[in-house]
Amino acid sequence: MTTALKNDLFLRACRGVRTERPPIWIMRQAGRYMPEYQAIRKNTTFLGLCKTPDLAARATLLPIDILGVDAAILFSDILVPVEAMGLDLMFSEHKGPSFPNPVRTRADVDGLEVPDPVSKTGFVAEAIREVNRRLASRVPLIGFAGAPFTLATYMVEGEITKDFSRVKRMMFSEPETLHALLEKATDTVIRYLSMQAEAGVHAYQIFDTWAGSLSSFHYRSFALPYVRKIVQAMRGYGLPSILYVNGSCALLEDMKEAGADVVSVDWRLSLSVARKRLSESTGIQGNLDPVSLLGTPSVLKDEVGRILKEMEGRPGFIFNLGHGILPETPVSMARYLVRLVQDGLSAPQPVE
Amino acid sequence: MTTALKNDLFLRACRGVRTERPPIWIMRQAGRYMPEYQAIRKNTTFLGLCKTPDLAARATLLPIDILGVDAAILFSDILVPVEAMGLDLMFSEHKGPSFPNPVRTRADVDGLEVPDPVSKTGFVAEAIREVNRRLASRVPLIGFAGAPFTLATYMVEGEITKDFSRVKRMMFSEPETLHALLEKATDTVIRYLSMQAEAGVHAYQIFDTWAGSLSSFHYRSFALPYVRKIVQAMRGYGLPSILYVNGSCALLEDMKEAGADVVSVDWRLSLSVARKRLSESTGIQGNLDPVSLLGTPSVLKDEVGRILKEMEGRPGFIFNLGHGILPETPVSMARYLVRLVQDGLSAPQPVE
Repeated sequence: MTTALKNDLFLRACRGVRTERPPIWIMRQAGRYMPEYQAIRKNTTFLGLCKTPDLAARATLLPIDILGVDAAILFSDILVPVEAMGLDLMFSEHKGPSFPNPVRTRADVDGLEVPDPVSKTGFVAEAIREVNRRLASRVPLIGFAGAPFTLATYMVEGEITKDFSRVKRMMFSEPETLHALLEKATDTVIRYLSMQAEAGVHAYQIFDTWAGSLSSFHYRSFALPYVRKIVQAMRGYGLPSILYVNGSCALLEDMKEAGADVVSVDWRLSLSVARKRLSESTGIQGNLDPVSLLGTPSVLKDEVGRILKEMEGRPGFIFNLGHGILPETPVSMARYLVRLVQDGLSAPQPVE
Repeated sequence: MTTALKNDLFLRACRGVRTERPPIWIMRQAGRYMPEYQAIRKNTTFLGLCKTPDLAARATLLPIDILGVDAAILFSDILVPVEAMGLDLMFSEHKGPSFPNPVRTRADVDGLEVPDPVSKTGFVAEAIREVNRRLASRVPLIGFAGAPFTLATYMVEGEITKDFSRVKRMMFSEPETLHALLEKATDTVIRYLSMQAEAGVHAYQIFDTWAGSLSSFHYRSFALPYVRKIVQAMRGYGLPSILYVNGSCALLEDMKEAGADVVSVDWRLSLSVARKRLSESTGIQGNLDPVSLLGTPSVLKDEVGRILKEMEGRPGFIFNLGHGILPETPVSMARYLVRLVQDGLSAPQPVE
């Protein structure tokens, strides 16, 4: 399948092969910043979009057609399989996702199921097949799932708060309840990602977005073992894997132990430091500050130039943002970013 | 003055002297978690409390009398001198501080003044003198100020958002406007801290809470030079200084260059790593996860034990939290924490 791709730069970089230039894709590359996305989203809810294969496929393709990125990532949300575990899920434009009946007790955990992915979330597999048909092997398709700790954070907090005090309070008072929840989330994610692999994704990313709220000590107990279990369970599919944590500076060496092919780092950690701390056998993805896309083209060019220089000659590098693209990003700036990485720093600037 | 203190453990630790045990104080140690604080706060606003020397002094003393910590920190807020720069400031119970007329343009910056601290914020000096009278040399008193980047973040954002996209957009599009704002904030902080020094604080902490949203590259341009300027300007007073950043893992070596005597780190970065990255000439303060005070006493004991072990034999260590104490913290747990550090891990546990 890989060999048939017209552009396999991304997959080669994931496998640590030296590439003629770094591949680029953008976290949340199909999103609110694009008028074409807004047009698709207008007639349905956010979850409706995720659950309608035709619409999810259309959203997935937008950044391929409009920006020309080197990989597609399935349009979906990490909480889709959590809803399938039996937890009511709501999305609001301002507050983001929330669970009106959060998980707070052992009984709440015991009440959750490990859902059959095909019967509960088969629309995801259908969307993957539909995307691959429309991509016609132009670029690879990335599947994804949330990591157990991050999913548990949403489930316990109910909605994201700045201190994560509910999930961490559980960690400090009822660790066995949290472990039970993490076990169920892990089993759910393994089955969910297996379905994605069987439907035809070429690689997958695990988002452990909120694990950056943990010390290394707690990461090694409440996050790492579960991610490692997922990576091991998925090994049979032979797909490259990427592990992302927001604010991962204190966790970099621990993350590596999860066994993913690529570690994705946010903008805080300089890539020149990251490449020293990770051996060349581990790929690195990152790490432009998403806010730099709200600045001037010439500052963006400097920022991209700095990152390219930090990673010069380093195999296994995938250019990306350090966190999701912001809704207020001008599309012209996203397109300019892609040109800077693909065509070089002399790519023509958009008009300011 | 120092020699007259009955308990000078904190000041000795700041100066890198080996102490018989680590001193402990708690960020936000006078706060909403204490019923005695709520009683003082009940009859006034938050800013009213800051601006009434008698009440501010009473709040400052509470954790000395109730918890027995080794240092007092003036009850105030980092935004007090910002209001004096000419920016309307509001506090709400739920959303925290906000500036209804945030700083967005060069003209906004030019409209701000560098206030005379005595005529505009003389109540702070009065509170310091009042605290020292009531402390009667039992423990040292810490003064404080926000760092320029963190103050600018509040001023530009208007209220704290999760991406800091407004202040960073200014950084990526109008860096000279941000530098002009940072210059004014720096001059304001130097005059404000000088007033505190002259009123009798024994040490001071600079809170650069939000600088952890910056990469090392941008920290070195937009945060570090201003903090360094403050530390240099304050040198004549001979007071120990502490620099705090939340999420500082990627910035530790840069922070050291600010020249403060002590670097205060949050809970994410293991202190065993921090002590390797900082030479013994730099003091270390931290770094218990505030949420651990919401767990069980036995887990808290384990957490404290781990930190004490990581710093065993390391001079210049001050025990603290990695971030401010949470409003939902039981006072019994805060008191138990102080006992664990002062009396050892066999201190009697509170009843669960």
